[in-house]
Amino acid sequence: MYGRYTQDLGAFAKDEAARLRLQQGHGEGDAPRLRRPSELLEYTQGRCAPCRVCALQCQRFFISKVGEDWVFLILLGLVMALVSWAMDFAIATCLQAQKWMYGGLDTNVLLQYLAWVTYPTVLITFSAGFTQILAPQAVGSGIPEMKTILRGVVLKEYLTLKTFVAKVIGLTCALGSGMPLGKEGPFVHIASMCAALLSRFLSLFGGIYENESRNIEMLAAACAVGVGCCFAAPIGGVLFSIEVTSTFFAVRNYWRGFFAATFSAFIFRVLAVWNKDEETITALFKTRFRLDFPFDLQELPAFAVIGIASGFGGALFVYLNRKIVQFMRRQKTINRFLMKKRLLFPALVTLLISTLTFPPGFGQFMAGQLTQKDTLVTLFDNQTWAKQGLSDEFEYLGILEAWRHPRSNVFVTLVVFILMKFWMSALATTIPVPCGAFMPVFVIGESPASGGWWAWCPSRR
Amino acid sequence: MYGRYTQDLGAFAKDEAARLRLQQGHGEGDAPRLRRPSELLEYTQGRCAPCRVCALQCQRFFISKVGEDWVFLILLGLVMALVSWAMDFAIATCLQAQKWMYGGLDTNVLLQYLAWVTYPTVLITFSAGFTQILAPQAVGSGIPEMKTILRGVVLKEYLTLKTFVAKVIGLTCALGSGMPLGKEGPFVHIASMCAALLSRFLSLFGGIYENESRNIEMLAAACAVGVGCCFAAPIGGVLFSIEVTSTFFAVRNYWRGFFAATFSAFIFRVLAVWNKDEETITALFKTRFRLDFPFDLQELPAFAVIGIASGFGGALFVYLNRKIVQFMRRQKTINRFLMKKRLLFPALVTLLISTLTFPPGFGQFMAGQLTQKDTLVTLFDNQTWAKQGLSDEFEYLGILEAWRHPRSNVFVTLVVFILMKFWMSALATTIPVPCGAFMPVFVIGESPASGGWWAWCPSRR
Repeated sequence: MYGRYTQDLGAFAKDEAARLRLQQGHGEGDAPRLRRPSELLEYTQGRCAPCRVCALQCQRFFISKVGEDWVFLILLGLVMALVSWAMDFAIATCLQAQKWMYGGLDTNVLLQYLAWVTYPTVLITFSAGFTQILAPQAVGSGIPEMKTILRGVVLKEYLTLKTFVAKVIGLTCALGSGMPLGKEGPFVHIASMCAALLSRFLSLFGGIYENESRNIEMLAAACAVGVGCCFAAPIGGVLFSIEVTSTFFAVRNYWRGFFAATFSAFIFRVLAVWNKDEETITALFKTRFRLDFPFDLQELPAFAVIGIASGFGGALFVYLNRKIVQFMRRQKTINRFLMKKRLLFPALVTLLISTLTFPPGFGQFMAGQLTQKDTLVTLFDNQTWAKQGLSDEFEYLGILEAWRHPRSNVFVTLVVFILMKFWMSALATTIPVPCGAFMPVFVIGESPASGGWWAWCPSRR
Repeated sequence: MYGRYTQDLGAFAKDEAARLRLQQGHGEGDAPRLRRPSELLEYTQGRCAPCRVCALQCQRFFISKVGEDWVFLILLGLVMALVSWAMDFAIATCLQAQKWMYGGLDTNVLLQYLAWVTYPTVLITFSAGFTQILAPQAVGSGIPEMKTILRGVVLKEYLTLKTFVAKVIGLTCALGSGMPLGKEGPFVHIASMCAALLSRFLSLFGGIYENESRNIEMLAAACAVGVGCCFAAPIGGVLFSIEVTSTFFAVRNYWRGFFAATFSAFIFRVLAVWNKDEETITALFKTRFRLDFPFDLQELPAFAVIGIASGFGGALFVYLNRKIVQFMRRQKTINRFLMKKRLLFPALVTLLISTLTFPPGFGQFMAGQLTQKDTLVTLFDNQTWAKQGLSDEFEYLGILEAWRHPRSNVFVTLVVFILMKFWMSALATTIPVPCGAFMPVFVIGESPASGGWWAWCPSRR
């Protein structure tokens, strides 16, 4: 029995080898036939022949030396920069429309309130419904899923075109509503989906792009691109892509991330210049420290205290967010009701938050009329908002006007802003739409460090 | 036979287990005796007893929650910042002494030349001799060796106190001579040695520090510290520590590198403020771009061209360096002669380079009197050194005076500077002293991008 099996195996191996040799022969027969046109080009007549030969040789040289990764990374960076810019443009338009509606109805407060509240509710409800129907995988930031995928686990439907469309449109609507939601987390997911789709598209051309394990590696570069084109911060993107990797970062992905993220951030900022939003390429959110004396040594302990406090605040934020989710899940009656009417919860939360930020109402105590980006820009303002500890003497110009209240102090406004934004952001990130939490957390973390509070530092008084 | 062996093994296992149990019993007997003082503290009388109990509990809580890595990283950062600062101080003193000697002898050019040439020759010869005698492993930058060690290979004598002393003193003398040598490479090695020594020292206290595999991990953080306290660039340090790792970067070392490098860079800059060199904490080499309009989009192609050219220049530099080394090794007669008189080669090279940079001689065409740091500062100068393409109209103030030549153009000076520095740096890095090549390469790479050459960009004319 044993011997016979060995004989069988030997015969099978011989057959297999013969078959393979035959196939190889065919392959060799095919290859020259395919290659012939370019190789025979040298002997063809015509003016352009030498040029074409030279071009082909150059192409071969580049592909052999430089590799085909560059093509992929450049395409990825370009596509993501375009997506990011287009999305920013759509979001800005949405936010402007809300402002315009709110400004136009200033004759009647009730109409103003209705406009202020209805607009985000409709957008968030649409976003939640659209995502739910098209691809429920697009809900949330997608960073935990990316971490899982990068570890090698295959998650179904997380890197498909459907999810891509759902995420892009859902995120645009969610951010266009003006809720305290972030863009970075989902953008990492979008960039990864873009990379996966791009690899699948390029694999039609064969070559290196057919290698599947390489495609997973490219996702690390995609994470860097996601951050890079979201905040125009390529180094931050690369650092993020390292952090996302759970245990061991493959150093061969390092240059990929750097190259793609830098290219993407560059194109993203060039688009802003091209659209005449900016005069030249600069940082997205600029600080304006003095060049020769950026900060005093005496201020550093204050910075350290803010840092430590923000650390605890961040932990509290995560805790609060989890408690809200757990509460919603435990209350079985609420849960069953909301499961039936899936769009009710997003609508209710949006209604609550937008009611509280209504500028003529409670919003006047927390700069409610400012969008998230405007808030960030005003908080980056490098002026002391109070002189001698008194806030009255300072002149609020332009956009800063929102922080002033005629019968209240700027410090009160800032404290109310932090407290309200804190739980509102924690609540808003539980809405089942594509959204992140980085940006609102930045805004909250930044407000204690902003101009107003610097007045407390000894050296700025 | 088989059975007997099993029986033997069983008996052996029983014996071994009994022995271990006995040992463990002894261990348990020992531990409470050791622990007793702190545990019985609660029952001791006295005013400070509750405080001491509380402090002990706090200590235990911190060590269990925060871990003991922090202590190590803070110590490493502190020590390296002190070493870096002390070394910079010593180097600056050495360079000033040369300047003072050269300035004091301005009555006689021959004496001036002798002073200018002898001083670096003596220093480099001493450095080479000292390193050779104490620890030949300290020669060179040490980065390739660190890469090897981080891969897990044990290199003998590369992380010892002897090498540490040889590297620190050798590097100080080498850089104090004013030769075109760098500090970064050796500093990575010094930081790693410091980490290794520190782990060995702390392992006397037992606990986590006795873990050997942890000590190798700490070397990655040490690489980050080396760069961080050399250039006051913590993020650059972390990125460098990732690049140094050959294939897979352990993400658990990421926060270590960040924390230690930031702390080290902070202390390094605070020391500069404390020594009244700086008014406040700022970057080591500052650029002075305008805040609102840092650069024009039209300049970017010029930057790209400089980048590409510098890339090829860097490759050429490495090629030239290797060719010099290979030439020296192949010429058997030269090689045999130099092997006998080991200090002759460093002395000859230093003599050649310092003769060429002698300011009243050829040095006047290449800003020879500037030290490496001064050169870098003047090249970072954010002014256009020529107006309308003509260099005569510009006023050279203070330290910039060195770039001007009465009968020559600033562009000629820059071209001569680049060409001369190029081969001089490539030659200088072959001297067997502890030295790196980053800094001279920075200087060379920066000069085409410097003020003078910007005049060629269309928008700055």
